[in-house]
Amino acid sequence: MTTDQYQDVATILERIRAALEANDLAGVSSTLADSSTEPLVDALERLSPRDRAIAFRLLPKHRAVRVFEDFSPSLRADLVQALQDADVAAIFADLEPDDRAWLLDELPASLAPRLLRGLPEQERRLTSAVLGYPQGSIGRRMSPEYVSTRTDHTAEEALERVTSRLADAETVYTLPVLDGGRRVVGVVGLRDLLGASPHTAVADLMSEAQTAVAEDDDEVAARRCADQGLLALPIVDSESRLVGILTIDDAVRILEQEESEDAARQGGAEPLRRPYLSTPILSIVRSRVVWLLVLAVGATLTVRVLSVFEATLEQVTVLALFVPLLIGTGGNTGNQAATTVTRALALNDVRRRDILRIVSRELRVGLTLGMLLGSAGLAIAGLLYDVRIGLVIGLTLLAVCTMAATVGGAMPVVARALGVDPAVFSNPFITTFVDASGLVVYFLIARAVLQI
Amino acid sequence: MTTDQYQDVATILERIRAALEANDLAGVSSTLADSSTEPLVDALERLSPRDRAIAFRLLPKHRAVRVFEDFSPSLRADLVQALQDADVAAIFADLEPDDRAWLLDELPASLAPRLLRGLPEQERRLTSAVLGYPQGSIGRRMSPEYVSTRTDHTAEEALERVTSRLADAETVYTLPVLDGGRRVVGVVGLRDLLGASPHTAVADLMSEAQTAVAEDDDEVAARRCADQGLLALPIVDSESRLVGILTIDDAVRILEQEESEDAARQGGAEPLRRPYLSTPILSIVRSRVVWLLVLAVGATLTVRVLSVFEATLEQVTVLALFVPLLIGTGGNTGNQAATTVTRALALNDVRRRDILRIVSRELRVGLTLGMLLGSAGLAIAGLLYDVRIGLVIGLTLLAVCTMAATVGGAMPVVARALGVDPAVFSNPFITTFVDASGLVVYFLIARAVLQI
Repeated sequence: MTTDQYQDVATILERIRAALEANDLAGVSSTLADSSTEPLVDALERLSPRDRAIAFRLLPKHRAVRVFEDFSPSLRADLVQALQDADVAAIFADLEPDDRAWLLDELPASLAPRLLRGLPEQERRLTSAVLGYPQGSIGRRMSPEYVSTRTDHTAEEALERVTSRLADAETVYTLPVLDGGRRVVGVVGLRDLLGASPHTAVADLMSEAQTAVAEDDDEVAARRCADQGLLALPIVDSESRLVGILTIDDAVRILEQEESEDAARQGGAEPLRRPYLSTPILSIVRSRVVWLLVLAVGATLTVRVLSVFEATLEQVTVLALFVPLLIGTGGNTGNQAATTVTRALALNDVRRRDILRIVSRELRVGLTLGMLLGSAGLAIAGLLYDVRIGLVIGLTLLAVCTMAATVGGAMPVVARALGVDPAVFSNPFITTFVDASGLVVYFLIARAVLQI
Repeated sequence: MTTDQYQDVATILERIRAALEANDLAGVSSTLADSSTEPLVDALERLSPRDRAIAFRLLPKHRAVRVFEDFSPSLRADLVQALQDADVAAIFADLEPDDRAWLLDELPASLAPRLLRGLPEQERRLTSAVLGYPQGSIGRRMSPEYVSTRTDHTAEEALERVTSRLADAETVYTLPVLDGGRRVVGVVGLRDLLGASPHTAVADLMSEAQTAVAEDDDEVAARRCADQGLLALPIVDSESRLVGILTIDDAVRILEQEESEDAARQGGAEPLRRPYLSTPILSIVRSRVVWLLVLAVGATLTVRVLSVFEATLEQVTVLALFVPLLIGTGGNTGNQAATTVTRALALNDVRRRDILRIVSRELRVGLTLGMLLGSAGLAIAGLLYDVRIGLVIGLTLLAVCTMAATVGGAMPVVARALGVDPAVFSNPFITTFVDASGLVVYFLIARAVLQI
């Protein structure tokens, strides 16, 4: 039965703040003790760094480690710098090797050797193994504390290995099966071992193994684990020898972090390293201003295009009225195509070699959309202004939709081929491209139709 | 050892297509047998519905069920309709109850009773339990085949329950712990049971249980499971009594589907129900045209605003040149804010009651961005045109950035309060709002500064 009195972030936050203001440390302690872990983590993340460090030190040790693991990586680093060495060493020793590597990535380099020195020999060895892989690789995120078994083991022998490692292994529910050369040749679930008669060979129980190589991109490996619904993915070296294991909870954590970064970049901002409400205003400004400037510089292209056609504009001012509508519709059409193809790429529904099929599909989609919107534009602008204006608007919509869908569909594949994240690169590029080229098309059509 | 010869989607696809064209069913069979499951599923998804049904029927039954489970939901429905009743009944009987419910959601209503009638009594009961919950609830996605234990059990008794249910339970690695009234009061991991001495009470081994109510939104429950890194989340009724279990692989599947839908809607399109390359062109057009029309109708607001200021435009045509740049920058600023806050909402970093803090932060962020971009605009337009035009551009950028960031930050919270998906609602709304109101501000400033 859970005896936690406080489930609500705001209540917890209020009580901690009130107690801290009154210098009532016992009050802080009792609020901490009476709070569920999940809202407590949220509440602590919203405190000022100093208050957070004070509250954190009042947590009993086993709980402190749990809470610490739930903090976002950069808050962990902040906290470590605010705590005293002895506290840090105690927490550090209790973390898993992969969490340690993650934390060290966030800390100033000078702190790392000191922390590592404080670890027991065995733990230091495991942590160093993880730290040996490049940042951004799955080797950095895997756990080196796996339980494996061998093809020539029996179910009984495999179960004994499980029992001997219950205390420290990252997972005991999925066991990589190795051959004589420590190469992964399959996996066996604890469930299958429990269900088998004791003398069954592991080789007869195991199933096909999905694996990832330690140097692989962490997002790719995490997605493989999650997509296949695997509880754990064995991580191997270039010769298929087992070096670690990625559990699904860590895979989900990696994917969630990547998605936050992608979401931010798709919105045209750098990802924040802290929860929104505890990020300083100037950090938020910094995360956005570069992209805004880049896009604004891109948009000066539209100013130049319009300058070229300034004489036309002076003659027929009514053309200016439709500029936002036309480039907006082009941008929307392009973004639709880019978003669809980006997602299809992420899910492996399409690959790079499909580019011609994508372009041909988007060309047809764009043409169809252009005919529908173009007819509507022709009718409405024709009625409200005159037939020739209607014709200009209709033809421009047809051209812009076709162009935008085709470019929008191709762009994510081109981005991937260039080694750039399609989610980040495609939409801003399309908007800039469609805005500028759409205006050129618009005025060329206008000049031709209106004969100016 | 995996003996799969073909790992590559394109190779598998080519071989299957060649064999089908030559009416060489044995050739299809042997390609299927020699292919890894993951690329095979991708390859089958790209076949035409008829070819897919033929190839599928050549799979041995145990493999067919595995492949079937990996298909996207709507492809499963297509396939079922292409297969013969006896084949379908066999596959249907082998699915898990939650997968059956998912499939039935996708099939024509007339098929459901026929399929259910074909099931053994016990399976029909389990499937009906899942079907009793509303669509979109976690009750519909959970598995009713759980193993639970009781507070008054010993570790040994709990392990016996696990052993007796190895064959059919959805998971045996996380056991909900129940009190006398079948209420969930904790969870215990198989790992803890294995590590405990046989007579330890389960009550002493269990830990705090996170749960979800069966009527809860499936995405909310899935995110709770994934965020907490739980292997399984007990699902309870309104009185905390256990009714099912959600495993993390199903949680990940739910989140992935939701993310695809969100990504599509953020890009301004309805989600596709099939993989991109197997979706007919007209279905793609249909998924996009409504949004495009809605946004275009919204954009006619800009035409009206500009009409109001047509006289000003005729006097100072140069004002028209900056229209795309100004509304583009406003849209970008608004989208940045909306994306950041939408993500923070999804991660529970902010809640509805934080709206005033969000608005006050975005106001300051927008002002700062506006001053930076406004100064740049003042300088550049001032140099290229004249000081008064520079002043108009600079002031407009300041006003538009401030307004866009504030509205952009508030919008996702308002959307959530209205019960609309913030990811879908915010960006189109902001673009329309910023475009129209930004133009009004622009021309009012221009009139004031240029005294026209």
